[in-house]
Amino acid sequence: MFTTTRRVQFHETDMAGIVHFSNFYRYMEEAEHEYLRSLDLSVSMTRPDGTVIGWPRVRANCAFEAPAYFEEEIEIRLSVSRKGVKSLTYDVEFYRGETRLARGMLKTACCVIAHGEPLKSIAIPAEIAAKFEVESDGQ
Amino acid sequence: MFTTTRRVQFHETDMAGIVHFSNFYRYMEEAEHEYLRSLDLSVSMTRPDGTVIGWPRVRANCAFEAPAYFEEEIEIRLSVSRKGVKSLTYDVEFYRGETRLARGMLKTACCVIAHGEPLKSIAIPAEIAAKFEVESDGQ
Amino acid sequence: MFTTTRRVQFHETDMAGIVHFSNFYRYMEEAEHEYLRSLDLSVSMTRPDGTVIGWPRVRANCAFEAPAYFEEEIEIRLSVSRKGVKSLTYDVEFYRGETRLARGMLKTACCVIAHGEPLKSIAIPAEIAAKFEVESDGQ
Amino acid sequence: MFTTTRRVQFHETDMAGIVHFSNFYRYMEEAEHEYLRSLDLSVSMTRPDGTVIGWPRVRANCAFEAPAYFEEEIEIRLSVSRKGVKSLTYDVEFYRGETRLARGMLKTACCVIAHGEPLKSIAIPAEIAAKFEVESDGQ
Repeated sequence: MFTTTRRVQFHETDMAGIVHFSNFYRYMEEAEHEYLRSLDLSVSMTRPDGTVIGWPRVRANCAFEAPAYFEEEIEIRLSVSRKGVKSLTYDVEFYRGETRLARGMLKTACCVIAHGEPLKSIAIPAEIAAKFEVESDGQ
Repeated sequence: MFTTTRRVQFHETDMAGIVHFSNFYRYMEEAEHEYLRSLDLSVSMTRPDGTVIGWPRVRANCAFEAPAYFEEEIEIRLSVSRKGVKSLTYDVEFYRGETRLARGMLKTACCVIAHGEPLKSIAIPAEIAAKFEVESDGQ
Repeated sequence: MFTTTRRVQFHETDMAGIVHFSNFYRYMEEAEHEYLRSLDLSVSMTRPDGTVIGWPRVRANCAFEAPAYFEEEIEIRLSVSRKGVKSLTYDVEFYRGETRLARGMLKTACCVIAHGEPLKSIAIPAEIAAKFEVESDGQ
Repeated sequence: MFTTTRRVQFHETDMAGIVHFSNFYRYMEEAEHEYLRSLDLSVSMTRPDGTVIGWPRVRANCAFEAPAYFEEEIEIRLSVSRKGVKSLTYDVEFYRGETRLARGMLKTACCVIAHGEPLKSIAIPAEIAAKFEVESDGQ
């Protein structure tokens, strides 16, 4: 499991006084990108031929269990719940201390992006796939 | 079914050249709020006693089928897929012409918000509940 | 003067119950882009040779005079305050009825963007420059 | 001078491949709030009587000198350029290594916020004012 923390920013709150729900999807993605960096990867990697390997989002969901407030430091726990041939699925939980605030899921697809061409889904290259360990049962 | 359109803004795109996935949840909510206004309701209604009836998000998900681009006018189709005693669930589809870009779901809970007190989930008041017609089978 | 309206969205408010100040810069830009469309232009125009003419932001400021609230329809008044050889400066005012909420300024530079190369500032092409009328004295 | 760093997130970039200009105002504010926390203050402080001392934004501007890219770690240098009776003005610079990316200014006013009443501008309480040191000449 990969764990990181995120301070809630003022501009992420709404008039209900809590973090706007759409920002949880951004937190999820920020954690994913930090996890990729921890593996010496990036969500956008340029290859020698100028094409880019990226991970467009296929599906994301989140269940909101308790609100998050300004200036709180939220703990985000991310793990790979499924490693497919062409896709990765993450399980993401948000905690304030012992209280779980939200739990989400993010499915991404490995793609090649060439300038001016449509995205092309590919099998995750072996040297990249080898870095991911499936650790969670998902939701 | 309630239908509206939304022009994609520049600040909603990301370096992949497409609308960032988190913005689909915002589009979803904007459509919900416009739908509520069409029923002479609001997602935040102050009552005579100063308390507010609001609809915090319980769960939201979205599947992304095709990208949306800057300046496109997206059609958003929203319908109520389930009317519970205390909650409403929306089914939301995004189209560019005949192409479906995404399909999402949003579950909200009816709550009373009193200043300085925690949210309290309540049964949807009858005069409000009467306005919603269940039209979709959901996903 | 170009005039448009913008409904304040829930996710644009913050825990102070008002539109977060950073969103006024987004409203400003949205009005600019709508103005460009009204002239049959776009802030991002691909030319026959595949390069793009764009308008990166050079400077922006805004003075906040009164708050804007959820669901209000704000009137945005935009005019060109200066047309330079290589830049355009906009004057933007935000109104709720007779009340001015904010006044801002946005300076943009005409640039050519070629894939994989740095931005290059250019003189505004004559046929584009001819479309802009200077109408405001700025701030 | 108060210095902090901020990693550029994917959702902060736009289709031009760089940080959207509106996010610099958010970075500015995030640095301000972190600075306030470093002084044992907060931009939103509840007092014993339930009222809140806040710092609404009066004016903000920013000049953009070079683009910022995804995953870069930006250094933000913030200093108080003016301490008025009722207001504070910050000078904020953004750097990537030796390259200055942007320079902005943020003027905030000290206010009391009581539930259901309009904001009231007040003189900065002495014990708070004492914490701020004017270090910059501004722009």
